[in-house]
Amino acid sequence: TTGAQANQSVLDMQDNPELWPTQLGNYAGNRYSRLDQINRDNVQDLVPTWQFSTGVLRGHEGGPLYVGDGRLYIHTPFPNRIYALDLEDDGRVIWMYEPDQDSRVIPVMCCDTVNRGLAYADGRLYLNQADNTVIALNAEDGELLWSVDNGDHTEGETMTMSPLVVNNKVIVGNSGGEFGVRGHITAYNAETGEMEWRGYSQGPDSDVLLDPETTLMMGEPVGEADLGVTTWPDDEWERGGGAPWGWVTYDPELNLIYYGTGNPGTWNPAQRAIDGEPADNKWAITVFARDADTGEAKWVYQKVPFDEWDYDGVNENQLIDVEWNGEDRKGLAIIDRTGFGFLLDRETGELLVAEKFAPETNWATHYDMETGRPQVDPEYSTFQQGVDVNTTGICPTAMGAKNMQPSSYSPETGLIYAGINRICMDYEPYETEYVTGQPYVGATLNMMPSPEDAGGHGGLGSFMAWDPVAGEVVWEIDERFAVWSGALTTAGNVAFYGTLEGYIKAVDLETGDHLWQFKTPSGIIGNINTFQHEGKQYIAVLSGVGGWAGIGLAAGLTDPEEGLGAVGVFAALDDYTKLGGVLTVFSLPDR
Amino acid sequence: TTGAQANQSVLDMQDNPELWPTQLGNYAGNRYSRLDQINRDNVQDLVPTWQFSTGVLRGHEGGPLYVGDGRLYIHTPFPNRIYALDLEDDGRVIWMYEPDQDSRVIPVMCCDTVNRGLAYADGRLYLNQADNTVIALNAEDGELLWSVDNGDHTEGETMTMSPLVVNNKVIVGNSGGEFGVRGHITAYNAETGEMEWRGYSQGPDSDVLLDPETTLMMGEPVGEADLGVTTWPDDEWERGGGAPWGWVTYDPELNLIYYGTGNPGTWNPAQRAIDGEPADNKWAITVFARDADTGEAKWVYQKVPFDEWDYDGVNENQLIDVEWNGEDRKGLAIIDRTGFGFLLDRETGELLVAEKFAPETNWATHYDMETGRPQVDPEYSTFQQGVDVNTTGICPTAMGAKNMQPSSYSPETGLIYAGINRICMDYEPYETEYVTGQPYVGATLNMMPSPEDAGGHGGLGSFMAWDPVAGEVVWEIDERFAVWSGALTTAGNVAFYGTLEGYIKAVDLETGDHLWQFKTPSGIIGNINTFQHEGKQYIAVLSGVGGWAGIGLAAGLTDPEEGLGAVGVFAALDDYTKLGGVLTVFSLPDR
Ligand SMILES: O=C(O)c1cc(C(=O)O)c2c(n1)C(=O)C(=O)c1cc(C(=O)O)[nH]c1-2
Ligand SMILES: O=C(O)c1cc(C(=O)O)c2c(n1)C(=O)C(=O)c1cc(C(=O)O)[nH]c1-2
Repeated sequence: TTGAQANQSVLDMQDNPELWPTQLGNYAGNRYSRLDQINRDNVQDLVPTWQFSTGVLRGHEGGPLYVGDGRLYIHTPFPNRIYALDLEDDGRVIWMYEPDQDSRVIPVMCCDTVNRGLAYADGRLYLNQADNTVIALNAEDGELLWSVDNGDHTEGETMTMSPLVVNNKVIVGNSGGEFGVRGHITAYNAETGEMEWRGYSQGPDSDVLLDPETTLMMGEPVGEADLGVTTWPDDEWERGGGAPWGWVTYDPELNLIYYGTGNPGTWNPAQRAIDGEPADNKWAITVFARDADTGEAKWVYQKVPFDEWDYDGVNENQLIDVEWNGEDRKGLAIIDRTGFGFLLDRETGELLVAEKFAPETNWATHYDMETGRPQVDPEYSTFQQGVDVNTTGICPTAMGAKNMQPSSYSPETGLIYAGINRICMDYEPYETEYVTGQPYVGATLNMMPSPEDAGGHGGLGSFMAWDPVAGEVVWEIDERFAVWSGALTTAGNVAFYGTLEGYIKAVDLETGDHLWQFKTPSGIIGNINTFQHEGKQYIAVLSGVGGWAGIGLAAGLTDPEEGLGAVGVFAALDDYTKLGGVLTVFSLPDR
Repeated sequence: TTGAQANQSVLDMQDNPELWPTQLGNYAGNRYSRLDQINRDNVQDLVPTWQFSTGVLRGHEGGPLYVGDGRLYIHTPFPNRIYALDLEDDGRVIWMYEPDQDSRVIPVMCCDTVNRGLAYADGRLYLNQADNTVIALNAEDGELLWSVDNGDHTEGETMTMSPLVVNNKVIVGNSGGEFGVRGHITAYNAETGEMEWRGYSQGPDSDVLLDPETTLMMGEPVGEADLGVTTWPDDEWERGGGAPWGWVTYDPELNLIYYGTGNPGTWNPAQRAIDGEPADNKWAITVFARDADTGEAKWVYQKVPFDEWDYDGVNENQLIDVEWNGEDRKGLAIIDRTGFGFLLDRETGELLVAEKFAPETNWATHYDMETGRPQVDPEYSTFQQGVDVNTTGICPTAMGAKNMQPSSYSPETGLIYAGINRICMDYEPYETEYVTGQPYVGATLNMMPSPEDAGGHGGLGSFMAWDPVAGEVVWEIDERFAVWSGALTTAGNVAFYGTLEGYIKAVDLETGDHLWQFKTPSGIIGNINTFQHEGKQYIAVLSGVGGWAGIGLAAGLTDPEEGLGAVGVFAALDDYTKLGGVLTVFSLPDR
């Protein structure tokens, strides 16, 4: 098969509305389906058709893939089983692959033993194992084709993100921002597993695959050399995080992949300042546009220089074509962890929109649209308030106003639909020492619902429709808990999302009116996917509470401060759900 | 509350057709419901209403209780969590009680870390913990009222059976027949936890609470003293098993409880012979009728003297009123592990019927209706064939033609409906030495489907309707796997059962015609229960594969001989289901 083979197979699949070939539905990350057998008028008749218990507890993220071969391919949290389930026989197990992994990986996973899903291309399935082993399987029989080692868990490195297959390369990112790891994104040959390129999130330009003369930042060349070193004190960049643990999207015409990087290592900003002054800590919390074949950075945009709040910038970069001041622009929209909704030009990296979707957001008043830099509010600056000082009432929480839960873009309404978090925090940084393979955090947090006088509604989450061009919330549904599941919108004018209590819900795309819900066995942090098989449309979701939000349940923690404050703010989750992974497939009754 | 209080509360509850107050539905163990909102004509419309993942893997036996307080009470396998779930809020957790148990109990549980369910009476919930702790909780808030120690897991004793509350006493039995334990049934005061009486399954008459002058056997006084000692070689009775790990039923008029005892310790019959001759090993595999208040044995019937096949006699003793030779008799019907369907007179213990329901049954040709003793076929006698000899083709398997899965009796049809096993075995006994707390088995087994030329159908199980008076199978449904779930019949003319692949199925009570099925998340070894809440009838079941049948999956065993042959014969289960406990509640759609 030629180089472009794997890429072509994904392109062909994403053109077929019956399939769900990638975790985000297509290369652009839209999580939108053109299927409309299930629509606004009949969705209330949806019933479960069959279910499959994965046999694994803890957080089930990601969702099933359907590539048109009569099967669903699903994955589980550690030890990352892969199942091929027979759609013709209520999910009979055609084959199962269970990697043999060292359980000492578990303690170095920051936010539960999650995995955001498989990738498929050209008859092969790809998985990032928690222990940094990237594997390719023959989708037909589950045979291992190749496996390669992407990192070292004894140094605090793990993997949770879903690979993306582009141009016969498998793009993968590591995790470890809470363990002082250096983030890197890597391309392996889809057929052989040979490493083709690796781009770091900090260090010399040669590590970052960045050319200050040609790589653009806010439309201009970066200009200065080795900012990945010079914007850090001493050798702190060697513990600089920026782990790309989130979603990767791809524009085949521009041949650019887009992804964001995580927090810059220690949560104590003072240890990342230079001579007592804020330093950008490039390229943490940065959107990278890289050439898919060489890895070269075409453009970069650092959303949060000198992070003081753990606002990892890994959320999905939705590729959407927009009209901007009368011109058609290739847009890139982000419902970002910072509480801001961004819109950039994905060709040049130019910042077009940066508006708050969570009104309580107060760490920054606004973004300077010239410099692209946030205007930090000193009252909520954990650096300016100082080490060992508890800065209170910062919104959003470190978990962000939206975490890894992927949003959905409907080309019909032009809106982005996302499950978001309405949570704020108190944050007290403290001096912390780096020990290889140990947590390297240095902050104590306490979290609480966004205050009602600042725009919160008393609960911990919402599901919203967002206009990415106007930068405005169009409608919003209040939820008891953060909506930590991946949204789906369809041509049937329905938006689907899951709740941490375990409900899958359907709402009217235009009005947000509630249409249908079903209580699945456990909280949903997976993504609602859809596909059509033998002329019948199905909705499918993995339930199984966990992730950072459910870390109290997942790891059996009860002290409110544990899980960096997540256990306390989500304590009530214990009354609504327990662990346990189940795939549920829904459809309209035959009559 | 007076002594009879707890008993009266159960009697009142079992008269209310809306409730499901005991694991077997009523004291008689009929697992029949007078509810008929769901019936033969509309059952195909049944849909899941809500679900609850228990957060525990391994075998989920037993089922939910409904006592009319707007809640479902469920339990889990080890560590035996108890949940009070709110029917008004899709199973919100009102309270959870999780005992703190030593995980070293797990290796001494023969057949997976199962538990057959809670008991409820007079506002209190009762549970037998795996580690032999019997507890009483306040059903309102889950507070522990009392706990008492019923045995010692370091000596191989555990508990899996469901308690029964009778006359303000909680009747409980131990497990440990595969560890050379002495079986005993015990009554504790329902309010205080004080032990009121304990009856052993062997030993001197004083231990067995048996009076040879008055206790009847086949209608006559036992006559000889201390048969619990004299029918054993030397002190082998001290390792004599007879664990009452199955179901207990109760006749309030006669004030008699009925239960059966397990296998007589080592599976090597030569070690239980006297001077090379078979010895009865009384009172293993015996039906006991005991006075509920004193424990005194009213009558006994040993179904299998000198067991050579591990045919534990603990199956539910269904109390049914029958017409026998023109007279009304208080009957006691058993779909027994031996492959025989028994009918006894529950007042006198007289044997009325002993007919094969599994035609391939060949260990005994018939029962002598005068003596009540089986006529053993030498070809399938593992004793006569000899130690270290592999006796082949014995039917049924040691798992029995029916194991613990409770049957259901419909007073309307007069038939008993049961999930059964169609499995045979090769059995090779060998000399084994007793070491306290270690397995004391001494046999290697290989199991296979009942051969088709002997009446098998190629699969491993069936669901049958049995005429307990005529001693005949009325209809039978073939199943791929043993039907290891508890049956339910209702006034709506429907019989429900669950399969090891995970299907809940509904069939026509009279014809066995298939009406409806739904694939729950995991194999079903729990019991299908029903209740009516706020005028709506619900069907509820715990799925979660395991038990002896699913021990390969439950304990991660892959060698066919492991699990005493169960892993081999059930290897294909791996293609259909994985572990994971989920409660599913079904009802008819509102429209
Ligand atoms: O910086 C990192 O390496 C890293 C990794 C991960 C991860 O791999 O799951 C998360 C985070 N950070 C993080 O900040 C975060 O909020 C988070 C939530 C989750 C989740 O799956 O619920 N993972 C992660
Ligand atoms: O003799 C005993 O003590 C004993 C205990 C148990 C149990 O407690 O589950 C089983 C058995 N025997 C047994 O023989 C058997 O077939 C069996 C099946 C199961 C089950 O839950 O699937 N338990 C047991």
